[in-house]
Amino acid sequence: MEAYLDNSATTRCYEEVRDIVVKTMMEDYGNPSSMHLKGVETEQYLKRSAAIIAKTMKVQDKEIYFTSGGTESNNWALYGTAQANKRKGMHIITTQIEHAAISAPLAALEDQGFTVTRLGVGPDGCISLEELEAAITDETILVSVMYVNNEIGTVEPIQKIGELIKKKNPNTLFHVDAIQAYGKFHIYPKRMKIDLLSASGHKIHGPKGIGFLYVGDKVKIHPMILGGGQQKGMRSGTDNVPGVAGLGVAAEIMYKNLDQNLEQMRKVKHHLIEGLAKIEDVIIHGPSEEEGAPYILNASFMGIRSEVLLHTLEDRNIFVSAGSACSSHKRAGSATLTAIGCSKPEMEAAVRFSFAETTTIEEIDYTLQVLSEVVPALRKYTRR
Amino acid sequence: MEAYLDNSATTRCYEEVRDIVVKTMMEDYGNPSSMHLKGVETEQYLKRSAAIIAKTMKVQDKEIYFTSGGTESNNWALYGTAQANKRKGMHIITTQIEHAAISAPLAALEDQGFTVTRLGVGPDGCISLEELEAAITDETILVSVMYVNNEIGTVEPIQKIGELIKKKNPNTLFHVDAIQAYGKFHIYPKRMKIDLLSASGHKIHGPKGIGFLYVGDKVKIHPMILGGGQQKGMRSGTDNVPGVAGLGVAAEIMYKNLDQNLEQMRKVKHHLIEGLAKIEDVIIHGPSEEEGAPYILNASFMGIRSEVLLHTLEDRNIFVSAGSACSSHKRAGSATLTAIGCSKPEMEAAVRFSFAETTTIEEIDYTLQVLSEVVPALRKYTRR
Repeated sequence: MEAYLDNSATTRCYEEVRDIVVKTMMEDYGNPSSMHLKGVETEQYLKRSAAIIAKTMKVQDKEIYFTSGGTESNNWALYGTAQANKRKGMHIITTQIEHAAISAPLAALEDQGFTVTRLGVGPDGCISLEELEAAITDETILVSVMYVNNEIGTVEPIQKIGELIKKKNPNTLFHVDAIQAYGKFHIYPKRMKIDLLSASGHKIHGPKGIGFLYVGDKVKIHPMILGGGQQKGMRSGTDNVPGVAGLGVAAEIMYKNLDQNLEQMRKVKHHLIEGLAKIEDVIIHGPSEEEGAPYILNASFMGIRSEVLLHTLEDRNIFVSAGSACSSHKRAGSATLTAIGCSKPEMEAAVRFSFAETTTIEEIDYTLQVLSEVVPALRKYTRR
Repeated sequence: MEAYLDNSATTRCYEEVRDIVVKTMMEDYGNPSSMHLKGVETEQYLKRSAAIIAKTMKVQDKEIYFTSGGTESNNWALYGTAQANKRKGMHIITTQIEHAAISAPLAALEDQGFTVTRLGVGPDGCISLEELEAAITDETILVSVMYVNNEIGTVEPIQKIGELIKKKNPNTLFHVDAIQAYGKFHIYPKRMKIDLLSASGHKIHGPKGIGFLYVGDKVKIHPMILGGGQQKGMRSGTDNVPGVAGLGVAAEIMYKNLDQNLEQMRKVKHHLIEGLAKIEDVIIHGPSEEEGAPYILNASFMGIRSEVLLHTLEDRNIFVSAGSACSSHKRAGSATLTAIGCSKPEMEAAVRFSFAETTTIEEIDYTLQVLSEVVPALRKYTRR
C-alpha cells in the first residue's frame, strides 16, 4: 500500500489535465500571438481557462492573469502594487505566518524603504481583527493575508478582514495568497473585498509551472515581466497554453466536485485525528478540527525528530512532510509554528499530513497502523 | 497538404518530450523540495536536465537556472545584473533590433536612471564592432546582444563581441538572448566570453512555459522572484519538473542531430529562396543566405499587405508570420525592419517564413506553388 499524504506540497495531475496538456503540445501547438489560424485556435484555450476560473470566483474573465505559478503571482502582487501605489503611502501589513513567497519579497520591499507590519497570530493561527484595525493607517497601501496556512491549515477570516480594511481605509488594497485554498473553498473576491488573489495549478491536480493572479479591474498594478505585450501587457512571454489549459480543466473539476471533495477530506482528517489520539504524546497544532482546513494536519510525535519519522514512514510508502515542504530543503525553524507558540521540542518533532479528495480511509488506516508500530520503536531508540 | 512555416514563433513538441512530461505529471509527480523519496526522485529530473544543457554549452551544471521561459530569462538577466552592479556604473549597451523582452525591460531601467545605448545595424542586421567599442566606457556594466534575430535571421558576431567587450572593460557583463539560437548553434559561453545567456523550451520542440538562464558562476546577479529558496535562492517557486524534464530532452535531441538539422534547414531555405526568385517583386531582407540563420527568411511581396497574404496562405494550410509573431498581435512598425532601412511599403508587405528540421522540400514546393498563384491574383485585386 502507498499513502501519499503530501498533497499540500504538490498533487498528481488529473487524467483530464494530462489529456489537454498533450493535445496542446502535439496538435494545437500554435503560438496564441500568431495571427494565423493555429494561433487563433490556441488563443481559445486561454480564453476558455480564463472564463472557467473567473466563473468559479464570480469575477470577470479579464481580471485573470496567468503566471508561472503561485510564487510569481505573490511576487508580482506585492512588487506590482507597491510600485504602482507608493505615492499614496509606503506601509504594508501582513502576518507572521505567511509563506516565504510573501515574506521574502516583503523583506525586499523593506530594503527599498517600505514599512512592513507583521501581525502576530493566536495558537489557532488566526490574526486579531482588532490588531489589524489598529495597524491600518492612511499610509497603508496593501494588506496581504493568506487564505489557508500551508503548515497548520488555519483558515483566516478573509471576508471580515476585507470588510475591515475597506472600512478603515478604502484605498488600501487587499491581497490574498490563496495557493492552499483555491479549488477547495468558495472564494468570491467582490463580496470578500479581495483586490488581488494568487493561486497555483499544481496544488489542485493541475500542471506545475502555472498559476494565476486575480487583479480587480480597478486595481493599480505595474507588470513585473515585460516583453511582447501578452496578457494586455501585464505579463509578457509566450503564453503557456498547455499549462493554462490544464489549469482551467483542473479548476473546473475541483469546483464541480467541491462539496464531495471536502466531505471526503473531512472524513479522512477526522479518522486520522481519532487514530492519533490513541498514540502517546502526540500534539496537534493549530486550529480545531472544525475551524481548520480539512486537508492539512500538523502534529508533533514528541521525542522523534521530524526527518527521522518522515524517512521511517517513507520506507513504508507513506509520504508526509516535515514542516513546510514548499521551502526547498530548508530546516530553519518554521515561522508559523514559532508564531503559534510551539516549543522547540514540538517544532523539531512536527510532521504535516496533507490530503487530497483521492486520499482514502484505507490509506489512513494503513498510516495509523504503521505509526502505532514505528513511533514507540523510534522512541525507544531515541531514548537509548 | 499543410506547411507550418512559423517555427520561430513556436514548434510542435517532440514525442519524447511529451512522454517525459506525461511521466512527471502522472507518475513521478512529487515536489522536488519534499524531503521524501517522491521529492528526491523528481529532483533527479532537474539535475539530469541541468547536466544535459550544461554539456551542450560546456559549462557547469550549477550555472543553469530554470525560468518560465525566454522572456523571464531576459527580464531577470537585465534587472538582476543592473541591480547587482549599479554601484559600478549605470550604463547598458544593446542593439536596435532586440526582441521586446529585451527592449521593454531596458526602457524600464532607463526610467530608473540607467543610461541605455542602442547600437544601430547595417542592412544585414549586424552591429558594427567599431561602434560597440566606442560605446563601452568605464560605466558600462552590461552589453546585451541577441544571437539570432527573430525577424530576419541575422547572426550577430557573438564571439567577436564578447572578446571586444572584455578587452575594453573586463568588468562589463555580456548577456546574449539566444532564444532563436540555442539548439541550432554550438554556443560556448566560456570561449565566447558570454556571462549570461537566455533560452526557451518551446522554440526547440520543448514545452512552453519553460526556459533557462545561464549565469556564469562569477557573475553578480540578484534574484527576481523570491520565496521558498529553490535553485539556490536564485529563482524560487515549486520547480516545474515536467517543463524542466521536457526541456532537457528537447535540448538533447536538438544537439544530437544538430548538423543534419542545419543541413535540412539550409536546403529548405535555399529551395524557398530559389523559388521566390521566380515571383515578381519579392524583396528578401537582412543577411545573405550564407550568413543568416538557415531557418528564418523574411521577404516582402510588394504591393500585398502582410496580413492579407498571411490569411490567404492560411486558407491553403500554410502558416507564416507577419513581422515578429512573438509580439502579441501588435502591428507597430517592426523595429528590426526599420533599423535595417526597410521602406514603409516593404515593411507593410513583409512576411516571415521560419523552419524546423522537420520542414520538407515538399512543403516548400507546395508553398511556392500557392504563392505563384495567389501573389499575382492578390496584386490584381489590390491594384483595382
